[in-house]
Amino acid sequence: MTSTKFESADQLHEWMGLALAEAEAAGTEGEVPIGAVVVVDGEVVSRRHNEREATGDPTAHAEVLALRDAAAHAGTWRLSEATLVVTLEPCPMCAGTAWAARVGHVVWGAANDDAGAMGSLYNLAADPRLNHEHLVTAGVRADECSALLVNFFTKRR
Amino acid sequence: MTSTKFESADQLHEWMGLALAEAEAAGTEGEVPIGAVVVVDGEVVSRRHNEREATGDPTAHAEVLALRDAAAHAGTWRLSEATLVVTLEPCPMCAGTAWAARVGHVVWGAANDDAGAMGSLYNLAADPRLNHEHLVTAGVRADECSALLVNFFTKRR
Repeated sequence: MTSTKFESADQLHEWMGLALAEAEAAGTEGEVPIGAVVVVDGEVVSRRHNEREATGDPTAHAEVLALRDAAAHAGTWRLSEATLVVTLEPCPMCAGTAWAARVGHVVWGAANDDAGAMGSLYNLAADPRLNHEHLVTAGVRADECSALLVNFFTKRR
Repeated sequence: MTSTKFESADQLHEWMGLALAEAEAAGTEGEVPIGAVVVVDGEVVSRRHNEREATGDPTAHAEVLALRDAAAHAGTWRLSEATLVVTLEPCPMCAGTAWAARVGHVVWGAANDDAGAMGSLYNLAADPRLNHEHLVTAGVRADECSALLVNFFTKRR
């Protein structure tokens, strides 16, 4: 189903740290603080954050941007060797993008109770009716990922 | 839920004709023949087709490209007045994008038995748990939309 190599908990912790830094950058810019990185063969090939407000692009979620960058880097839309690491459980669009890109592994931080599509409302990563399934590791540094979002929305009120 | 004005069957038929022309253009380029247009207040603001192979971008499905163009045209990611017209029932990524863009109405042609997310495998357009729902009109010029796909894959064999 995937040829993604074994990734240690320490590695996932470290990569989530990069995604958290991206999420913080988004918050500084007034964007909902969500960040994502894509890793291929141990190399971080893209780091992005939510840019929806600045760009006015409905698809400018961190995951979509990071996966598009990773595809440009790889020269193909097929990212079966890629691991996507994101601070919030992906929404239907972003989970669908991970599926469309045939990613090998998705690692997410905080659960997305409102729109999560990798375990909460849907699980697009593990539907045998679809032509691709992939690994999911949930809850990596969840408290830190969640705190960024809670603080952002608390300050806005 | 939406302020999209009444659209007649004749209008939907005509707009699907534009989407079909886009789908045909995709097929000519060796792309899976799927086309989409976005209409706002009766004006066709974007016309796109699948460009996944040419661009190597996993998100370069007709619907995503057409919605991004429509958002650029509108200057906002919120497309609640928009109608998306597409030859094939959207996949999870594209249905998720229509949700993320808060579209008012999606019109699709052929059913997508393998990955349809507006009625077949999922219905992301009508899930009360999500923060936006929208109208769907299914099966407009379905035979023509389907024939393009069948002919494309038959020739490839």
